[in-house]
Amino acid sequence: MRKSELFTKTTKNVPADEMARNAQLLIQAGYVHKEMAGVYSYLPLGLAVVENIKQIVREEMNAIGGQELIMSSLQPRETWEKTDRWDDKLVDVWFKSKLKNGTEVGFGWSHEEAIVGMMRSHISSYKDLPANVYQFQTKMRNELRSKSGVMRSREFVMKDMYSCSLDAKTHEDFYQKTIEAYHRIFKRLGIGEETFFTVADGGAFTDFSHEFQTICEAGEDVIYLDRKKKIAVNEEVFNDEVLAKLGLKRDELKKVKTAEVGNIFNFGTQKSEAMDFKYTDESGKEKFVHLGSYGIGVTRLVGVLVEKMADDKGLVWPEMVAPFRVYLAPLGVDPKVVKAADELYELLQKQAVEVLYDDRDVRPGEKFADADLLGTPLRVVMSEKSLEKGGLEVKKRTEKDVEIITKEELIRRLRA
Amino acid sequence: MRKSELFTKTTKNVPADEMARNAQLLIQAGYVHKEMAGVYSYLPLGLAVVENIKQIVREEMNAIGGQELIMSSLQPRETWEKTDRWDDKLVDVWFKSKLKNGTEVGFGWSHEEAIVGMMRSHISSYKDLPANVYQFQTKMRNELRSKSGVMRSREFVMKDMYSCSLDAKTHEDFYQKTIEAYHRIFKRLGIGEETFFTVADGGAFTDFSHEFQTICEAGEDVIYLDRKKKIAVNEEVFNDEVLAKLGLKRDELKKVKTAEVGNIFNFGTQKSEAMDFKYTDESGKEKFVHLGSYGIGVTRLVGVLVEKMADDKGLVWPEMVAPFRVYLAPLGVDPKVVKAADELYELLQKQAVEVLYDDRDVRPGEKFADADLLGTPLRVVMSEKSLEKGGLEVKKRTEKDVEIITKEELIRRLRA
Repeated sequence: MRKSELFTKTTKNVPADEMARNAQLLIQAGYVHKEMAGVYSYLPLGLAVVENIKQIVREEMNAIGGQELIMSSLQPRETWEKTDRWDDKLVDVWFKSKLKNGTEVGFGWSHEEAIVGMMRSHISSYKDLPANVYQFQTKMRNELRSKSGVMRSREFVMKDMYSCSLDAKTHEDFYQKTIEAYHRIFKRLGIGEETFFTVADGGAFTDFSHEFQTICEAGEDVIYLDRKKKIAVNEEVFNDEVLAKLGLKRDELKKVKTAEVGNIFNFGTQKSEAMDFKYTDESGKEKFVHLGSYGIGVTRLVGVLVEKMADDKGLVWPEMVAPFRVYLAPLGVDPKVVKAADELYELLQKQAVEVLYDDRDVRPGEKFADADLLGTPLRVVMSEKSLEKGGLEVKKRTEKDVEIITKEELIRRLRA
Repeated sequence: MRKSELFTKTTKNVPADEMARNAQLLIQAGYVHKEMAGVYSYLPLGLAVVENIKQIVREEMNAIGGQELIMSSLQPRETWEKTDRWDDKLVDVWFKSKLKNGTEVGFGWSHEEAIVGMMRSHISSYKDLPANVYQFQTKMRNELRSKSGVMRSREFVMKDMYSCSLDAKTHEDFYQKTIEAYHRIFKRLGIGEETFFTVADGGAFTDFSHEFQTICEAGEDVIYLDRKKKIAVNEEVFNDEVLAKLGLKRDELKKVKTAEVGNIFNFGTQKSEAMDFKYTDESGKEKFVHLGSYGIGVTRLVGVLVEKMADDKGLVWPEMVAPFRVYLAPLGVDPKVVKAADELYELLQKQAVEVLYDDRDVRPGEKFADADLLGTPLRVVMSEKSLEKGGLEVKKRTEKDVEIITKEELIRRLRA
């Protein structure tokens, strides 16, 4: 895309009403727009980041047999009363409204009950199981405060998957498969080394639930981490009994601040009992379905990536997530340079390389500053000087050194 | 995909609580799930249809310079008070709720005001114009009644585009471009011949707005159509004065029932004046931005396609929209047949042909009934008989005749 055509503008002004570093930078770079506290719109570059993350998650969910669907945001009261999760005293994040006839409706902050209600229409026999479904849903949560930018918004995109299994054993198998898929996702997002499988509170259903926690100063969680064993304990269940159960030693653990990027939960049959979700087994006997739920905070991940990777010059995106792989900046208005840049832009597009072409007639410093602020992985500069030296000047966003290479070498590297 | 793995089931039972034919069929075929009156979830096949429609619309919007983004559903009161559209007495479809601190919030039923508010942060100079942005948004509308299935839901997906132009002339150029893009979209969706550019009420802003109306018995609109001139007049502005202005003759028009699938609207500068949306022209003078809005009802189109194309056996999808191009059904459990079907399934997947492989051990009649109900464009049957005759039996969903062709011929036809 030509930068002259991209309608969003960058700004050096740090938004005064925004405390979170991630939202400040995303707003300054024109990735998001703040509608009100805790509510953000995603402009073209921000939407591209969200979609790139979604695509990675989608591929991994499909690979383990997930089927994508999309549930409604509007939720009827009855669906949630069965499990006692309609009452504002028990669930304090509902946004609720009323139909014209006075009927109360809620806006989905989770979809466990809705999914179970829907699955009951399709699952009745052991032949119908397993069934694993997921969605990318815009969840609404009426948070008391919202000061963490896109890491905790009142409206956010979440991938939530739900598994329906025959029994505890097949449930456990899928649970393990999902753990592996989650590790692959965080690795592909560039935070694999910093994201840890974490034992957390299991609530009413089970001993423990499991989280994926990414080391992040701006996170809201605290975990005790055994880096060698690659396992952690959420501070909410950090006690001697739990440590003994997990075979962990207190003095080998490090206390770190983290952001929860994923969580997985075994409901056993408790929720299917509450909602009467049964199947008939081979012998004709009715049994309750084993349920699990598996979340990944998609827009939260946008915030976590910013917090972890950005530097004092702006955003830094991992290759798989960046809206553009290349920031192409010709310097000056020399017709030879402009022609060479135009040609390279066309060539890269033909090679299906996503490129932002800074075709504006502005000072080099402004182009360099935007290239940094936007966080594009590779900056490619063309100037009279670079052409004399044999081509173009490349610089990775994460490195300081520049290098002069030929057009052919650039293409070769982008293909690698 | 293997049908044995698809979790959704078909049913012969017409849902008793559903009056609209489109929703009845979509529910019976497992495309959607009804959450409550006017609220539907989209199961894997339904989501595929929605995404296919979105992709066609996206390509055409990008082709005319649209930039995709996604605005928040949550809307602050202030944004809409400036244009007097917050008050429930003036806009009667708001769903509203409250933050914990008592602040009222709404859920977007439209995004005109929100878009203008956001664009003001990025547009200030004539150099920033034109800027045309669009989104696929899940709109919430608190409809008094909802009896038309997915053709008028309380929660639905809409493509809304907004254009910001320098002046009336450049606005008009883009308006015309969009009209052409809309014609291409409806043509690609298979309803081009039945969808008409229609003159409608312009409200407070302009003489007329324009709609795209598709002939449809289940539609809620009435137009007066001149088929030869390919233009129509919405009954709301059907009078002698308007006919004279448009050069239409009363006795050459036919009254038909239609569904509004698109609408385009010229706001002039009225909304930018109300919201103080200005730019500085080349001479340094401040001017108001010319605005237009352009909608397409994505999930409504799902309903319109069903209503127009379905027959007494079930759904019928145009090729570009169907979740699968091929329904592959081996008959019986003869190992030779199963092996040949398995091989064809793999071959089609390698050719990137979307295929639903009915690998279930059920009666042929059940497979035929599902193939029809699901509306897949091409049914491919393999049996001992077909193999003896040289290959496989193909039948288009819209035709009665079957034909025996070779595997190679099938591939050739699917490529064409």
